[in-house]
Amino acid sequence: MTKQHARKPSMRWTAIEAPFYDLRSTFMQLGIIGLGRMGGNIARRLMLNGHTTVVYDRDEASRNALANDGSTAVADLKELVSTLAKPRAVWVMLPAGAPTEDTIQTLSELLDADDVIIDGGNTFYKDDIRRAQELTAKGLHYVDVGTSGGVWGLERGYCMMIGGEAAVVERLDPLFATLAPGLGSIERTRDRTSTDDRAERGYIHSGPAGSGHFVKMIHNGIEYGMMQAFAEGFDLLKQKNSELLPPEQRFDLNTADIAEVWRRGSVVSSWLLDLTADALATDPHLDAFSGSVADSGEGRWTIEAAIEQAVPVPVLSSALFARFRSRQTSSYADKMLSAMRFGFGGHKEPK
Amino acid sequence: MTKQHARKPSMRWTAIEAPFYDLRSTFMQLGIIGLGRMGGNIARRLMLNGHTTVVYDRDEASRNALANDGSTAVADLKELVSTLAKPRAVWVMLPAGAPTEDTIQTLSELLDADDVIIDGGNTFYKDDIRRAQELTAKGLHYVDVGTSGGVWGLERGYCMMIGGEAAVVERLDPLFATLAPGLGSIERTRDRTSTDDRAERGYIHSGPAGSGHFVKMIHNGIEYGMMQAFAEGFDLLKQKNSELLPPEQRFDLNTADIAEVWRRGSVVSSWLLDLTADALATDPHLDAFSGSVADSGEGRWTIEAAIEQAVPVPVLSSALFARFRSRQTSSYADKMLSAMRFGFGGHKEPK
Amino acid sequence: MTKQHARKPSMRWTAIEAPFYDLRSTFMQLGIIGLGRMGGNIARRLMLNGHTTVVYDRDEASRNALANDGSTAVADLKELVSTLAKPRAVWVMLPAGAPTEDTIQTLSELLDADDVIIDGGNTFYKDDIRRAQELTAKGLHYVDVGTSGGVWGLERGYCMMIGGEAAVVERLDPLFATLAPGLGSIERTRDRTSTDDRAERGYIHSGPAGSGHFVKMIHNGIEYGMMQAFAEGFDLLKQKNSELLPPEQRFDLNTADIAEVWRRGSVVSSWLLDLTADALATDPHLDAFSGSVADSGEGRWTIEAAIEQAVPVPVLSSALFARFRSRQTSSYADKMLSAMRFGFGGHKEPK
Amino acid sequence: MTKQHARKPSMRWTAIEAPFYDLRSTFMQLGIIGLGRMGGNIARRLMLNGHTTVVYDRDEASRNALANDGSTAVADLKELVSTLAKPRAVWVMLPAGAPTEDTIQTLSELLDADDVIIDGGNTFYKDDIRRAQELTAKGLHYVDVGTSGGVWGLERGYCMMIGGEAAVVERLDPLFATLAPGLGSIERTRDRTSTDDRAERGYIHSGPAGSGHFVKMIHNGIEYGMMQAFAEGFDLLKQKNSELLPPEQRFDLNTADIAEVWRRGSVVSSWLLDLTADALATDPHLDAFSGSVADSGEGRWTIEAAIEQAVPVPVLSSALFARFRSRQTSSYADKMLSAMRFGFGGHKEPK
Repeated sequence: MTKQHARKPSMRWTAIEAPFYDLRSTFMQLGIIGLGRMGGNIARRLMLNGHTTVVYDRDEASRNALANDGSTAVADLKELVSTLAKPRAVWVMLPAGAPTEDTIQTLSELLDADDVIIDGGNTFYKDDIRRAQELTAKGLHYVDVGTSGGVWGLERGYCMMIGGEAAVVERLDPLFATLAPGLGSIERTRDRTSTDDRAERGYIHSGPAGSGHFVKMIHNGIEYGMMQAFAEGFDLLKQKNSELLPPEQRFDLNTADIAEVWRRGSVVSSWLLDLTADALATDPHLDAFSGSVADSGEGRWTIEAAIEQAVPVPVLSSALFARFRSRQTSSYADKMLSAMRFGFGGHKEPK
Repeated sequence: MTKQHARKPSMRWTAIEAPFYDLRSTFMQLGIIGLGRMGGNIARRLMLNGHTTVVYDRDEASRNALANDGSTAVADLKELVSTLAKPRAVWVMLPAGAPTEDTIQTLSELLDADDVIIDGGNTFYKDDIRRAQELTAKGLHYVDVGTSGGVWGLERGYCMMIGGEAAVVERLDPLFATLAPGLGSIERTRDRTSTDDRAERGYIHSGPAGSGHFVKMIHNGIEYGMMQAFAEGFDLLKQKNSELLPPEQRFDLNTADIAEVWRRGSVVSSWLLDLTADALATDPHLDAFSGSVADSGEGRWTIEAAIEQAVPVPVLSSALFARFRSRQTSSYADKMLSAMRFGFGGHKEPK
Repeated sequence: MTKQHARKPSMRWTAIEAPFYDLRSTFMQLGIIGLGRMGGNIARRLMLNGHTTVVYDRDEASRNALANDGSTAVADLKELVSTLAKPRAVWVMLPAGAPTEDTIQTLSELLDADDVIIDGGNTFYKDDIRRAQELTAKGLHYVDVGTSGGVWGLERGYCMMIGGEAAVVERLDPLFATLAPGLGSIERTRDRTSTDDRAERGYIHSGPAGSGHFVKMIHNGIEYGMMQAFAEGFDLLKQKNSELLPPEQRFDLNTADIAEVWRRGSVVSSWLLDLTADALATDPHLDAFSGSVADSGEGRWTIEAAIEQAVPVPVLSSALFARFRSRQTSSYADKMLSAMRFGFGGHKEPK
Repeated sequence: MTKQHARKPSMRWTAIEAPFYDLRSTFMQLGIIGLGRMGGNIARRLMLNGHTTVVYDRDEASRNALANDGSTAVADLKELVSTLAKPRAVWVMLPAGAPTEDTIQTLSELLDADDVIIDGGNTFYKDDIRRAQELTAKGLHYVDVGTSGGVWGLERGYCMMIGGEAAVVERLDPLFATLAPGLGSIERTRDRTSTDDRAERGYIHSGPAGSGHFVKMIHNGIEYGMMQAFAEGFDLLKQKNSELLPPEQRFDLNTADIAEVWRRGSVVSSWLLDLTADALATDPHLDAFSGSVADSGEGRWTIEAAIEQAVPVPVLSSALFARFRSRQTSSYADKMLSAMRFGFGGHKEPK
């Protein structure tokens, strides 16, 4: 892992203006495996700010796209390892589960002592704890990075929660500092006294391996709860014109305008509200969506963590269950309610 | 309201054997308005045990059916009042809201001082409080009876929660004692010390007017929660064969047998479980039901009472909301979740 | 209600710089009743931008404070009415319920046809619907304003949801435009096509009387849900060091840094998160708080609205119930669980 | 495993009358490990009905107590195995987790091919699946029995859900038939068509290994939900005298009488209600209980199963979270709500 001091970005891809410039002026080299939306843009944001990248994806077109933007693209993991300077840093940005697990297993056999494997995906934090133990036994380092930012990360930067050994996280700091959003135009928190300014620049070293993905997992759990709060509220606004209500109590509310007005000066102003206003501006009835909502591991693991810790999480669990319910057309549970009602009261539900 | 001492039932209708015999041997006369499933069977259970009834329903066929079973059927409320001996007792068994309200209003103008109006329907308890005040001002008495028992009441008796003046409830006791299930074969509660044995015979004087319907309302709230607990549990049993699970963790469970086995010796044994076992015995997939579940006032008023009392009711409210959700095909709330997910992550939900 | 065209602010109080300037250059006169934190600052923000105010509060010190800042303070409602030019506009900013109700009743007897009463408090929207009917019968106008902004409104502006007749809301526009936050530095919503730019400037005409407070009520319901989502998530982070967990799975997480890092680039970034970061910066264990949390009408009315509309709101209700539970020390409900556990299993809960 | 045909009970302990007599007249020998409340009474119920038992507990007093009631008590597992006739059946009735796991591991090394290990404890069903695979590889059989009945099992019988190979479950049938409650006085389910009458006698063969504990786990999940439904309802009844209500809407309700009256003819009649009535009869304010409620694995695993199956379980999870909350004095979550309220509104919660 050579540190360079060149000032000029290494990439030819300059479609967007550099959103952030690493003041520390230390440019690094990073191997990146997995060039999907996240991995590809992580590479681009690094190159845009002077770092160099060696990239691999099993899809050749993805590799070529990055090569075209300035990366050194390689044909397999072996070549990736041989191309990187020691001590190496390899960022794995693949779907959680087998793809990530297998890749890290393979890497662990190719890398040398003191090299670092970074898992930037959505891994379950207990897998991180186990992996860190296994890799430490081989003399390797393991860093888990919970990454928020989605499709906007290239431009806005990635909010990162990082678990691993302090010295190793420090070694990689130029990369994290570059990927993070930076102070930006966000108002500073009053009375903040911490001597560690990384949090203000959009990334933290949260603790030992696993803690990065744990904090990211809770972040997603909160996200589910906030989304469901908005969803329920807007449903109430939309249904205020329901025929269930007496005519004089009905309002035909403009949900697009309501989302917009709350963006300025209200207690619920938030990025999720911004996105809601975007969506409603052009599709106020949300006809583009079926109402079937997916969920991912983090929302589920958050509830499991709550059970392990005996912490009540009625909102976070309700948000998850609402998504489960959204994917059912009619449930056995509901039919059973009808069966009981018929049993005790002779109530026949309309079919 | 004449008290009779004849021992022989007054009715000709003897299809079922007398399930209960009032040991007090005081037979009374009751006016009954509304001869639906509940009102009609209340009349029958009373007559079967020696009481006499004067009945009215706006539907002539219903009146004739009861006349055939031994009632004195009348053509309107005026005739009902003139037929009853003083002090009169009139049981109103009509849908809550306008039908009950209007009938009581009319009755209040026809009756004489010291007569009693009994509302055995599903009235909101605050309406009872108001009515009792209004009727007291006219010298009349008002008694509200929360009645559980449904289609089985004729045979099993009606569990009754009665609100009103103590002396008036006492005056009507022969009626309540007859309608109630009686001690039956239910095991006695250990260590019970109360000198009032009415609860053990299936009815209570719960307090002033309104308290009967309030207690019945909470009963229904609990009923919703218990039903939903069973519904969720059986859904989990049914879905244990889901393709979402790894094959070695799937079980093809027999829900009919499970309901049956829990009826004996398990902690969840209950009448609702008996009904569930009945339903599953012949329709294990519950194909007879659409999954759309109705709800009634009591379940809703229970949540409103909880809000007034600042008592957390996560289970009772969840049970209500599950019914609301069962009637939606796809909700604006769910679509909004999809819209936000698309906004921050580019996730496209399947449509 | 005279419209003035003077450009110079009418107030002597100039401690803060004018945060917003009404480009329409039409200055109005407003009567304000209730000079608490909200009412007083509404007067100040108006005067700071050129409008004139005639104010009343039953507390003389409050009146004097505003007089000192440039208002015309009056001694009673009669004087307030006689001081204002016709057609008058009077903003009532009092606690919901009797104080507001009584004041509006008194005003309605003092005002003349075409005058406007504005209720800027937290009134239940069904009261607005009723009042508008009553006042319309007297030739008066009624406007309800749901106001968000709290202690920051003077500086940031007030987000307002306004119900009432369109022409009357238009007449008052210079006031609303001044009180609202304005476009500010908030990024514009993509693809917004509405020709009504008021939402972008922080206020909307939501519909007829009552709709303003209804939308504000739902806003608060959402606020409860979002707050509870954060609360549960941070509880999970805090308790990740719990002795209930195996030592190798415990993390000692820095909640202040986590709140801070999520402020930049994460999906949960929001004003509530900003406030959380502020609080945690100096009191990471939140020792300043007892854990007993109040709730207000809006959160409760939101659940009641959901019940009326048959819309499931598991998150909004859970958030409300969490506050109820926070104020209990030990609940009868919990004791009952213990009693049942003892009954069937002989389990003795620790006391 | 010798089958005996003696008719006389093998035990000297005859304090209670035989509650059930196995009509199949085949008496078996069973090894039992763990003589706590459950294990000891299982031995007693078997002996009372003609079976013989060989028992072990690490506590000598427990062994002696059973020996006194007719069991053959042994000093260690080795002696237990050598004492039992082949093919052996050993019932392990120990706390789930290490005690059970270690004992089964030891047994698996002492037993011979075709012997059966029965786990009657509260094991997590995935452990059963794993164990069955391991033991099958050694030529042994594994049967998991979910057992409900608690302290009343000796008298009422045990409701059992049994997982394992059909032929092995059949081989053990005389034991299960004896332990089960039998038809008893419970009314038969209408229209039941199954040719397998075991469910009606209180036990089922639910499927392969693990299914017994899975079904028992769901049973407990439902139990939690039902208990919480009652708890919330009775809390509402109790708090109907709250000072939060206007005096004319308060009722001073007798919860003991209400529980009693619902036992006869109401929809919520159930064994849990019977227990509730017992508890309230002598302690209507439940002063014997602190309000801190424990929970066990099954309630938690039920939620985890729901997450794996993507089945919404708002009631079952709410019931679990209510127990978590009952054990907290004040939560970080609640303090965080207060911190946010202070941030946006300057609200100072009472401390």
